[in-house]
Amino acid sequence: MDEANLIAALRSIVGEGSVDVGASINPDDLHDESLHPPVPVATCVVRPTSHEQVAAIAAACSSAGVPMVARGSGTGLSGAAVPLDGAVVISFSSMRRILEIDLANHVAVVEPGVTLAELDEALRGTGLRYPVHPGERSGSLGGNVATNAGGMRAVRDGVTRHHVLGLRVVLADGTSLDLGGRFVKSSTGYDLVQLLVGSEGTLALVTQVTVKLSVRLPEQVTLLAPFATLDEVSAAIPELVVTGVDPAILEYIDFLTMAGITSAAGLDLAIPPSVADAALAYLVVVLESTSAERLDEDAAAVAEHLSRLGAIDVYSLRERTGVDLIAARERAFYVAKANGATDIIDVVVPRAQVAPYLARVAEIAARHQTFITGCGHAGDGNVHLSVFEADEAARRALLLELFEAGIELGGAISGEHGIGVAKLDAYRALTDPARLALEERLKFAFDPQGLLNPGRSSRGTTP
Amino acid sequence: MDEANLIAALRSIVGEGSVDVGASINPDDLHDESLHPPVPVATCVVRPTSHEQVAAIAAACSSAGVPMVARGSGTGLSGAAVPLDGAVVISFSSMRRILEIDLANHVAVVEPGVTLAELDEALRGTGLRYPVHPGERSGSLGGNVATNAGGMRAVRDGVTRHHVLGLRVVLADGTSLDLGGRFVKSSTGYDLVQLLVGSEGTLALVTQVTVKLSVRLPEQVTLLAPFATLDEVSAAIPELVVTGVDPAILEYIDFLTMAGITSAAGLDLAIPPSVADAALAYLVVVLESTSAERLDEDAAAVAEHLSRLGAIDVYSLRERTGVDLIAARERAFYVAKANGATDIIDVVVPRAQVAPYLARVAEIAARHQTFITGCGHAGDGNVHLSVFEADEAARRALLLELFEAGIELGGAISGEHGIGVAKLDAYRALTDPARLALEERLKFAFDPQGLLNPGRSSRGTTP
Repeated sequence: MDEANLIAALRSIVGEGSVDVGASINPDDLHDESLHPPVPVATCVVRPTSHEQVAAIAAACSSAGVPMVARGSGTGLSGAAVPLDGAVVISFSSMRRILEIDLANHVAVVEPGVTLAELDEALRGTGLRYPVHPGERSGSLGGNVATNAGGMRAVRDGVTRHHVLGLRVVLADGTSLDLGGRFVKSSTGYDLVQLLVGSEGTLALVTQVTVKLSVRLPEQVTLLAPFATLDEVSAAIPELVVTGVDPAILEYIDFLTMAGITSAAGLDLAIPPSVADAALAYLVVVLESTSAERLDEDAAAVAEHLSRLGAIDVYSLRERTGVDLIAARERAFYVAKANGATDIIDVVVPRAQVAPYLARVAEIAARHQTFITGCGHAGDGNVHLSVFEADEAARRALLLELFEAGIELGGAISGEHGIGVAKLDAYRALTDPARLALEERLKFAFDPQGLLNPGRSSRGTTP
Repeated sequence: MDEANLIAALRSIVGEGSVDVGASINPDDLHDESLHPPVPVATCVVRPTSHEQVAAIAAACSSAGVPMVARGSGTGLSGAAVPLDGAVVISFSSMRRILEIDLANHVAVVEPGVTLAELDEALRGTGLRYPVHPGERSGSLGGNVATNAGGMRAVRDGVTRHHVLGLRVVLADGTSLDLGGRFVKSSTGYDLVQLLVGSEGTLALVTQVTVKLSVRLPEQVTLLAPFATLDEVSAAIPELVVTGVDPAILEYIDFLTMAGITSAAGLDLAIPPSVADAALAYLVVVLESTSAERLDEDAAAVAEHLSRLGAIDVYSLRERTGVDLIAARERAFYVAKANGATDIIDVVVPRAQVAPYLARVAEIAARHQTFITGCGHAGDGNVHLSVFEADEAARRALLLELFEAGIELGGAISGEHGIGVAKLDAYRALTDPARLALEERLKFAFDPQGLLNPGRSSRGTTP
């Protein structure tokens, strides 16, 4: 089947108006939010409206030997949804139905184009929520599944994979599979759901997602604790966790990032200048509870712990200010981007290694005469760094050193952004060849023609 | 390499005394707790003491083309550790070191032969625990990983896979891989750790397990609520969960099972005869908290909810009695076995389907003129049934119907016991052939010679 025939076939599947070709392609359908996207020439963008259409599209592309790239809402940070030249982009923007909110089983069943904001809205008034909270609420559930999105609530609530119970998928050749279900435990065959979460569209096309919901606790408070050093923040984390208070969010923010995000958000935290001058790092603790009384008790206990653990002071932020600070923190990526950051990476290390890792980062930055700022998920060791290095060769060498330092401390290249195209070279350079070979064999087991997101992900080579 | 040469090679790896052959094989090394074990003739039982020895054993067996079966402490219920004829049994009974309790990162690193009881003992006084709580504390961590063991705490704390952060493994050909690490989130390559958990020894040999620990809450109470019908128990679950009280355990026990386990344990729950006569099902709720005051509040709130939801009464069990009831419930399997149960199965269904499923079970039992009793994890839909049917053909037909009824209600064959050899025929008969084919390709990606636990698991055929 040549390209013209393939496009005709796709049009017969989804309808004339749902296939964009050539100049009719919206350029926004060809990139995500990553900072160094390739500029691809896609064959077309196709917008299916059902599982059956996705299966027919995959079968047609498979017959034609043409690669396919799934696309959610394009909020990814590693270029996993950026197609390679000649690929068919399968956009899930027309599959955004919330199929069911199942209150008896506490699950939601959604199409992959549904955004986190839409799901959250649909859950209003039920007492339930989908707790995974990556920075961007316009991200789609399908995209969250592809990257195993994390976010600030991972310390208590886990990441995407801990909430995905079932997937309906299409393999590269058009085969349909229903995997998992509305249950949290199973020991029945290989757990293919877990294998697919985080596979960046390289193994299957997801057409339906069943997620576990959790209880929305009514009371919330945000505590802000400035510390003189990041070492103290890092040392405080396990002490705080073992008390059993179970914070919903535990973030550290360095003083430069704090200045950047509060200024960008026009947010005044009313921290006295003498404290701000002495603080090199901030710890943000969000607590939730079933009652205002318990929340107050917990907040008092945490404040006492933090003071004992070296906090210069502890501020209980008024409700609005606390929400605004978390929102400002979520925008850190965009603030860094606007300020000219050339890379935003998210190495994960064992949480007790955050301070040693940042010491290594400072040493690397000094040696490269480069500027690096940061914030991150202190509770789970996921360090977000904004890197400012314009020179391309220097930039690549620098990133490789930053990743390598994380791996040496027992970590991994990415906690939640994924490998995509942005970190593919680094992933291949720094990963055990025996593991890479095994991943290639797994990829082959799912997609022997190598058509799903080839050469634009952590696995698979350009056909 | 012939058998004599292979045994000589294995002896040179682990030492003369750590290879049992022929009559020197302890029969207990060839079975687990499943009720219909095949009686195998193994080539030998070998007891390595290190990762390096396991790698050398795998390389030797791979060269000889001889199958391998990993063995923990033999507490499995589905025969996954029962070798097929001619296999080398790799017993992890000599790999039971607790390598590290890492208090800063809240993880433990153990060898696969370490038992749950041993790990629990090592954590005493740390304020932490490994919360996965399958019925049998002599089960090994390696075996728990192989079957993705669950247990009564899954409703709040999840199952084995939610706690395994890293694995050191050996592939069938002797290749070593270090997977995952001391972090809860990663988006760096396929999640091979999650794929291996629950794979019943068919993909790799696990030589080291890194698990996440959680906080041990100091206060605990057990509530027991008799209900007139199981429908009411089932309907009460989502209502209870949505309150935010977050019970550690939510078990239902039918009146026959309750009589059996309390009598076997010599336990008097002091339930008035009039209540016991009216109760067809019991709900057991275990609550935990950071303080006695909060525990009392929560217990009062739960008791009020349960009364409103139809409980005949709610008993707060004294500390010892509560612990004893949970222990008695854990022995349900052995009580059923001692009473002549021919099968003990653990279908999982969406938790709102527990009552409809049990109605189907009653209908099937009546039609087959068979006796079936049950209890289970009401919070997560994992239904444990004891089946009494001596006739072999009738037994197989009955099991197939019980599994099929669960699948039709949106469930799966096993919540935590696994497929092993006991349910392999049923798994193959009731699973989408496209999924089975994909599982075979995955198996091939890991183990192209088909040497790891072949023909004695959910995947792979006898070589």
